[in-house]
Amino acid sequence: MSERKIIVNGTIITVNEKNDVFSNGAIAFENGDITYVGEVPEDLSSYDEVIDAKGNYILPGLINTHGHSPMSYLRGYADDLPLEQWLQEKMWPLEERYTPEHTRWGAYLSILEMLRTGTTTFVDMYDNLDEVAQAVEYSGIRAKLCRGVIGFGSDELRKSKLEEATNFAENWNNGADGRITTMMSPHSAYTCTPEYIKQIVDAAEKLNLPIHIHMSESKTEVEQIQREYGKLPVKHLQSIGVFERPTLLAHAVHVTEEEMDILAKYDVKVSHNIISNLKLASGIAPIKDFLEKGITVSLGTDSSASNNNLDLFEELKQVAILHKGIQYDSTLITAGEALRMATINGAQSLWLEQSIGSLEVGKQADIIIIDTNQPFYHPKHDAVSHIVYAGSGRDVNDVFVKGKQVVKNKEVLTIDQEKVFYEVARLFKTLEK
Amino acid sequence: MSERKIIVNGTIITVNEKNDVFSNGAIAFENGDITYVGEVPEDLSSYDEVIDAKGNYILPGLINTHGHSPMSYLRGYADDLPLEQWLQEKMWPLEERYTPEHTRWGAYLSILEMLRTGTTTFVDMYDNLDEVAQAVEYSGIRAKLCRGVIGFGSDELRKSKLEEATNFAENWNNGADGRITTMMSPHSAYTCTPEYIKQIVDAAEKLNLPIHIHMSESKTEVEQIQREYGKLPVKHLQSIGVFERPTLLAHAVHVTEEEMDILAKYDVKVSHNIISNLKLASGIAPIKDFLEKGITVSLGTDSSASNNNLDLFEELKQVAILHKGIQYDSTLITAGEALRMATINGAQSLWLEQSIGSLEVGKQADIIIIDTNQPFYHPKHDAVSHIVYAGSGRDVNDVFVKGKQVVKNKEVLTIDQEKVFYEVARLFKTLEK
Repeated sequence: MSERKIIVNGTIITVNEKNDVFSNGAIAFENGDITYVGEVPEDLSSYDEVIDAKGNYILPGLINTHGHSPMSYLRGYADDLPLEQWLQEKMWPLEERYTPEHTRWGAYLSILEMLRTGTTTFVDMYDNLDEVAQAVEYSGIRAKLCRGVIGFGSDELRKSKLEEATNFAENWNNGADGRITTMMSPHSAYTCTPEYIKQIVDAAEKLNLPIHIHMSESKTEVEQIQREYGKLPVKHLQSIGVFERPTLLAHAVHVTEEEMDILAKYDVKVSHNIISNLKLASGIAPIKDFLEKGITVSLGTDSSASNNNLDLFEELKQVAILHKGIQYDSTLITAGEALRMATINGAQSLWLEQSIGSLEVGKQADIIIIDTNQPFYHPKHDAVSHIVYAGSGRDVNDVFVKGKQVVKNKEVLTIDQEKVFYEVARLFKTLEK
Repeated sequence: MSERKIIVNGTIITVNEKNDVFSNGAIAFENGDITYVGEVPEDLSSYDEVIDAKGNYILPGLINTHGHSPMSYLRGYADDLPLEQWLQEKMWPLEERYTPEHTRWGAYLSILEMLRTGTTTFVDMYDNLDEVAQAVEYSGIRAKLCRGVIGFGSDELRKSKLEEATNFAENWNNGADGRITTMMSPHSAYTCTPEYIKQIVDAAEKLNLPIHIHMSESKTEVEQIQREYGKLPVKHLQSIGVFERPTLLAHAVHVTEEEMDILAKYDVKVSHNIISNLKLASGIAPIKDFLEKGITVSLGTDSSASNNNLDLFEELKQVAILHKGIQYDSTLITAGEALRMATINGAQSLWLEQSIGSLEVGKQADIIIIDTNQPFYHPKHDAVSHIVYAGSGRDVNDVFVKGKQVVKNKEVLTIDQEKVFYEVARLFKTLEK
């Protein structure tokens, strides 16, 4: 079936190389691929369906480059605590009781939230990833998934985890009609020995997959790596050979200039988890310096346990205002640069920039429409400014992934919201004893 | 007419002294006053109207303690510029062309946005305040208004401005059925001479009104005051006698410990404009220290030209995460403390804590209801955490001010939104030449 659809009468923010904006624009797609972007064509007769965007903003779906979707049970369960107490007394004991069923419904809650707020692609690092992958397949979202591997416990346990991660990565790469791609993921240098990380990197090399790893989230972590290995985290990971694979780092809050040069040399990507890092009191990543070094920076929410939502529009505004404020430079990270971080930079960080991250002919039709019939978007000056500085994911009205509509009039079409709320409430009770 | 109404089946977040939360709660009001707060009563027969809150969250309307509502025309008109260029080339030339008609429709756009996002009381500092007051009267919101006085120009001009400010403050105090109260407002120490500020303070004393003034927003401003008057801003204002009147400061970003002690001694209130201060690269106010000194801190959006919206839920989350991040202390400013800043502290900062800022019997019925039938509010753990960390003003479903419903199902009942958008677009064209 090859239906030709066109959305007309919207302001199209392409986020292409020239940052083209078409103020009375149209975008057409067929078989999931974008076939036209530009002014509204005179003749629409060749299209099977014409959708009226009613002057709304149309932009690429946002890309959330770090998270743990099954952790949504823990949103608001414990806040404002010291990090260690939060982890050891609140997060870990409950997560230990997770079954695959918990993982599944936690992932659904997160996917529901992401689709509702205009995220069309997300990165997930957790375990029981088959459950997450199935939720991705079913819900119609796009994801880059990895079984995050923590190296504690026995040799057998480590071996079986690596096997599980490898099998998952192999089986699901290019799954769900191409909407799922995979990575290999040693959780971090403080939870995996260098030898174990090396094994994971070797497996990634065999499968020709990238690496996703937490790095330098807190000062404590950096000190621990230095104490144990006599090296700063970037040099430690470099020495193990991690960066020989394409690598996406989560956090990178505490990084020296020398380390940045290494990251730039290997084209390592950084997922900036700006809100989670503030809330957990980890600090603020030196994004100004990363950008000056040419490092690709994208945006991640981290899990809703430390955020506490997955509305990436919050990260979008935060990245455009926070660095201005702490650097005393109101020209730093413009609205346009922030929007690139949440879209095309996100795609580059997942090595998917050929297919997503901007609205261009030949790319896949991951499209969101923002309802601008609200006070936040008036007067109608600069659309990109309004999206970044005045907008909210709550204002997203419609979402298409690979040409298929998954959100309509602010309602997620592919997930039964009431059932998700019910299952999550029911299953949470089994976590808390 | 004395209709007795009761809202039932909601989670009531009172923000009273004990921070009581009633998870299956009810709130009743009559003649604009709250008559009952607690568990749902068994007998509802004495009420004329019973409103079902369907498990949603019910809390006091938020209080925005600093802004310039008529500036809404300039949202997204100029961003990411150096402060001086932004002011001198973009803001001031357009504001100079404002007529009373511009002021009116700009205020309506801001009030529309505030009501829609759960702010029931706002502070406004601008000129042509009669227009703003009429918009407040008509729209049903509550406000504390002042004609902000800039002391440039001739003696006659200064005299006429002071007269205008005084007349406005006198005429409108306790106007609009008590929903409007007023202040006197020298714009700042860098736009008014000490003599002129003194005259304004004298006028405030005669009318028994408080003072609202910008202070120490940027480092440049602090340096200028030191250069001109040989004193830090707090000492300068103290020497003029400003703090002999109840005073609400906007910004207070750059304040020394010695200055804080003076502010604490005089019980001066601080409106923390956390997002505007970041976006304009002014810096971050030392809220941790203010709180330790016992200074009352509330939240302000500043205008939508530097924010760029008036959704105070953004300030609510920001104040609870930013100070954690920069102080490396995840226990700093809990969700509950942040919510108090946006409600009861706001009321205290306007000397209105006897009538608004919390849901308590005898106070006025300024109530908002948040639609929790959305993924952000699940699982239903701590309501205050969800409101602060996961919520958005976009989720506000219903708003009552002084017992009158002004927002229903996310629609502002008292303002014609389409007309506001039309007038603002039309009038903006006359500003830009």
